[in-house]
Amino acid sequence: MNRIPPSVVLERLERLFVGLGFAPGRASLAARLFAEASIDGVASHGLNRVPRFVRQVRAGLVDPAAEPTLVEACGAWERWHGGHGAGSLNAWASAARAIELARRHGIGCVGLAHTNHWMRGGAYGWQAADAGCALLAWTNTMPNMAPWGAADPAVGNNPLVVAVPRDGGHVVVDMAMSQFSYGRLDTFARSQTPTPVPGGWDAEGRLTTDPAAVTASGRVVPTGYWKGSALAVVLDLLAVACSGGRATRDIPRDPELEGGMSQVFIAIDVARAASAGDTASRIAAVIEELASVPSLDSSAPVRYPGERALQARRENLERGVPVDDDVWREICRLN
Amino acid sequence: MNRIPPSVVLERLERLFVGLGFAPGRASLAARLFAEASIDGVASHGLNRVPRFVRQVRAGLVDPAAEPTLVEACGAWERWHGGHGAGSLNAWASAARAIELARRHGIGCVGLAHTNHWMRGGAYGWQAADAGCALLAWTNTMPNMAPWGAADPAVGNNPLVVAVPRDGGHVVVDMAMSQFSYGRLDTFARSQTPTPVPGGWDAEGRLTTDPAAVTASGRVVPTGYWKGSALAVVLDLLAVACSGGRATRDIPRDPELEGGMSQVFIAIDVARAASAGDTASRIAAVIEELASVPSLDSSAPVRYPGERALQARRENLERGVPVDDDVWREICRLN
Repeated sequence: MNRIPPSVVLERLERLFVGLGFAPGRASLAARLFAEASIDGVASHGLNRVPRFVRQVRAGLVDPAAEPTLVEACGAWERWHGGHGAGSLNAWASAARAIELARRHGIGCVGLAHTNHWMRGGAYGWQAADAGCALLAWTNTMPNMAPWGAADPAVGNNPLVVAVPRDGGHVVVDMAMSQFSYGRLDTFARSQTPTPVPGGWDAEGRLTTDPAAVTASGRVVPTGYWKGSALAVVLDLLAVACSGGRATRDIPRDPELEGGMSQVFIAIDVARAASAGDTASRIAAVIEELASVPSLDSSAPVRYPGERALQARRENLERGVPVDDDVWREICRLN
Repeated sequence: MNRIPPSVVLERLERLFVGLGFAPGRASLAARLFAEASIDGVASHGLNRVPRFVRQVRAGLVDPAAEPTLVEACGAWERWHGGHGAGSLNAWASAARAIELARRHGIGCVGLAHTNHWMRGGAYGWQAADAGCALLAWTNTMPNMAPWGAADPAVGNNPLVVAVPRDGGHVVVDMAMSQFSYGRLDTFARSQTPTPVPGGWDAEGRLTTDPAAVTASGRVVPTGYWKGSALAVVLDLLAVACSGGRATRDIPRDPELEGGMSQVFIAIDVARAASAGDTASRIAAVIEELASVPSLDSSAPVRYPGERALQARRENLERGVPVDDDVWREICRLN
């Protein structure tokens, strides 16, 4: 594991992206979003994903010049076409537009069709919360999870992001509808550690904590079993309805080809209510109380959603961006 | 188990509620919502809940005359005060208002403070979908679940409803953030059946499928473990931020006294997009494909969320509303 100064990571990524055809400002934002994911402790959707992203741009699946274009405005809800541009830049622009709509209408919704993997969804939660807005956002994915009661991967694990602004650290949930991502399962497998709760089914259909057995069968367990499966289905349909774009079943089932997703960004300008001050105090009290709940493991206090990211951010900005040796070597070679 | 003709159930409940001080039209709607929950197979939030609801009205916790009043309008997002009225009527009115706002602005949001238990949340999903709108809605509850890493019940199981309209049967998810409700655990315990997946921890802190052990310890497992815990926290905060009302921690921790909840209703007028027809076809295709996925159990086909409710509705409207003997006897005595 290397630690690289943030400025070095940013400069190298920016140069890489400009070389791929991204305009300088856009290259800079894309670089920042990859770096910040690793800085916040989410390397799986940060620097680890850069090589695949570069392959997808070079293969013509991600268009470095494409920006979202407005398809239809229905007041505070708008439909945008992502033009198969970079998923992170499209998502950032769409969240920004949802925030603008929320400023004008109290709540705003952007449905974004024909975009690509948004990388770390939590980034848009932090973006909205930094602007004083709450955010509900989700994306569909390629089919990668079996619906409840079946073995064939016919639904996506469709990540959901919910963010609420708070002084002293926003509250941000960023969760896929599978209990563990495939990246997480690989991490467990490499360290020969069982998953802390069942991660999926083995080839014989038995629920198991053996990460390698789950990866081999491809049968991850949905978050909350039938519940995560149901939520994945309805979020897929709602993404289609809001964006006019594709459903999970229309997305190529190959991580290298996965593209053309549908996403939704709903922002609420919660700070503009007359009693926003009272509300902020109530929110602060909930988070304070959570920190005071006795923990079952004295070495691991009870955390609020987003707290771990903030802790990682503080540490990594000071000590350097943590990056896997092989990943950094590959990124350096890509230039 | 009795089966009572729907008209008999409605008439008896309506009379009961008029006797409690509900205006006739409101008594009729409250009766319909209780009956429809049982008709759709959700007796735990239908007829089984009538006796407690009556006790709460008689105790003055639920005001039969109260209707929501507008506190503040921020464009397409409004804050309403529920006046501690009947939760189901308040929720119905709020969903209706969110739909009106969506008709005007594309998307509409109602934050409802100081209301009571909304009974079956899915009802408002069906309500919106019947009006051609999608719905995202949730409520906070009393503290009834431990946050991840702790044993004390400091968070609510905060149910979430997501609905998408569809010809031939709406897609509706109605899920609490605990893997099983206490009502469901009691049902398993009475039939001496283990829960199909771990339902909580026993008094020694071991994950268990013994429903009685979970009920005794009061430690239900969150939906998706740490994920359901995180989602419960952020939905509580977002309900506070949207409504200006109380957080879970402010709600009395006793099912008989539970009241003063905060709720959010977000409606999206998805049918008004120019390409709504294409979208409907895409949605239909997803549901068709789901029905064709090979099931692991030939006696239990893969279902879409909402399908089971629709099947129960068809059967129960024909054969009569299923109601537990003791529950029906108690309802008849209450008049």
